[in-house]
Amino acid sequence: MCGQPAGAAADGLKAMFKESEIIVSSRLRLARNVKDFPFPGWASEKERVDMCGMLRAALDKTNALKGSLFVDMAQLQDTERDLLKERHLISNELSERGQGSGLVVSVDEQMAIMINEEDHLRMQMISVGQKLPEAWERLNALDSELENQVEYAFSPRLGYITACPSNVGTGLRASVMLHLPGLKLQEEVEPAINGLEKLGLAVRGLWGEGSEAWGNMFQVSNLSSLGESEEAIIAGMLRTIEEIVGHEGNARARLLESKKTFLLDQVGRALGVLRNARILSSREAIELLSLLRLGAEMDVVKHVDTGDVSQLMLLTQPGHLQKIVETTLEAQERDEMRAAMIRRRLGGAVVEE
Amino acid sequence: MCGQPAGAAADGLKAMFKESEIIVSSRLRLARNVKDFPFPGWASEKERVDMCGMLRAALDKTNALKGSLFVDMAQLQDTERDLLKERHLISNELSERGQGSGLVVSVDEQMAIMINEEDHLRMQMISVGQKLPEAWERLNALDSELENQVEYAFSPRLGYITACPSNVGTGLRASVMLHLPGLKLQEEVEPAINGLEKLGLAVRGLWGEGSEAWGNMFQVSNLSSLGESEEAIIAGMLRTIEEIVGHEGNARARLLESKKTFLLDQVGRALGVLRNARILSSREAIELLSLLRLGAEMDVVKHVDTGDVSQLMLLTQPGHLQKIVETTLEAQERDEMRAAMIRRRLGGAVVEE
Repeated sequence: MCGQPAGAAADGLKAMFKESEIIVSSRLRLARNVKDFPFPGWASEKERVDMCGMLRAALDKTNALKGSLFVDMAQLQDTERDLLKERHLISNELSERGQGSGLVVSVDEQMAIMINEEDHLRMQMISVGQKLPEAWERLNALDSELENQVEYAFSPRLGYITACPSNVGTGLRASVMLHLPGLKLQEEVEPAINGLEKLGLAVRGLWGEGSEAWGNMFQVSNLSSLGESEEAIIAGMLRTIEEIVGHEGNARARLLESKKTFLLDQVGRALGVLRNARILSSREAIELLSLLRLGAEMDVVKHVDTGDVSQLMLLTQPGHLQKIVETTLEAQERDEMRAAMIRRRLGGAVVEE
Repeated sequence: MCGQPAGAAADGLKAMFKESEIIVSSRLRLARNVKDFPFPGWASEKERVDMCGMLRAALDKTNALKGSLFVDMAQLQDTERDLLKERHLISNELSERGQGSGLVVSVDEQMAIMINEEDHLRMQMISVGQKLPEAWERLNALDSELENQVEYAFSPRLGYITACPSNVGTGLRASVMLHLPGLKLQEEVEPAINGLEKLGLAVRGLWGEGSEAWGNMFQVSNLSSLGESEEAIIAGMLRTIEEIVGHEGNARARLLESKKTFLLDQVGRALGVLRNARILSSREAIELLSLLRLGAEMDVVKHVDTGDVSQLMLLTQPGHLQKIVETTLEAQERDEMRAAMIRRRLGGAVVEE
């Protein structure tokens, strides 16, 4: 799909790289609608408010969401919307909704149910690393509990009915967020993405549909949810992901093997700027943190924790920064606060000599 | 000529900046030709070889050049030519000459006489900082000593005759190398250069005619050498230079006063890359060293010596690098050696908190 394997040595090295470092997170979502009610885009505000109240009550009664938190979209500040988006708990689309739309978040923040986004229900399971089979079990349990209370729009021929035809059938979308800095440094990202797209998968950027791949983060998801069982969709996805993880591992092994100086240069420059800049945009920060994360995972950067680096990728986003100081900041203020936070947190990191 | 003064505070701060830091070096050169002999471009190889031998002997007899070194251009390796160019001892044009061209260098390396460049003689005085009046005294003394031995091509109406009409008259060109990173960061370089050009001065890059201003280095020189005395040419030049030095000082003062974070960001990023890169081109190195030099001169970078920084600007050039290892290096090898040398030398430098 991309590049050539570099022989037995590279195959040996490949085992060094943990799948869990390349698959940053995984997400499953089920789209469901209530029978005989208009989709949110066609409903009146009153209908949406009623639907939201009804679904909130139904979700509240499930064991899966015991003790969950309800967020009314109409009550949110811009900063709070940004924060939820940065955590990937809500979509761009829900973040623009107000009255009659809401979010239910489980205690562990792994389940996030969007009410009246494009469909009445968008039930999501979000996990760190690749945990699609476990996530499916939990999501399926919630779906079954809910089906006892709510009659879904369902066609025996097509499956679950959704606002957009692309979700009809299982209503399932499985996605994983992949961190592919090795392929990027080897200039092999394009062929890898083309390969995934030929296999019927969608590749998007860090912030979903239409966004760019900031920080070498690529969201890969299935396009079709019709004609296959949920288990088959997930299994197909996992096979493809395993392959791309192998390519990324291989790209990293070849960097160590034959482009070590280039690797140290790229990682060193990133660390040098992160430790010394006073003004950093969120885009630049995430690009540089991506390279630093690669360096930490490949053990060429010392005295830095990969967990710290991935936390910084999230904490330095606009919504999170503003949440920390509990006030609205201008872009320039955010850029300075971001740089100061990163400088402080990466104080001891050095690249190997 | 460029920007607006920023009031009394800036005027006060301006005094902090030493002229000697902004005027990196100064150079005087006299063009002379021997009467009744063809210019080098029109002479046969035999004529050039004879002329070179005759002038070398004459120069050797002067007090000004006692103990000087003669370099035969026909005997030089490419690396040695680069080295002489990087030290500004020879021009691009002389570096391309062979048989019948040469260079006489004084013991202190401040006088460099090019034989059979465009003219029979190009006598240069090169000084650190601004020392044009002193340089003129020394150069004038050499010229007088030589005139006792050699009959120059001279017209009572025009003055000294030269191969190119632009040098006819005094044959004098005065230049100073200015380091203008403050104006660059304030985006005021363009108007400053336009102002100098309107005053009849030529502005060139670090490597002379046709070159770009690497590392914010600008070579400013007089265009006309006709119709004014040598002293008047030098005095006029000094008045203009004083003005531009004032503008640079003012630009630096305003950076400290109202753009301190931006200044620390730019200087910090430069230091961060210099201390961490493993591959550095000579262009990138000189650009980053220019910013570091600014930081050191403005005392926002600690534990770094400005002399070390300007020495690195020279030592990391291709000819100097190859001289150190006494061998020819590929571009990639030079880029790695350059980065390693800089990393080692700047080990302790930090930007103020």
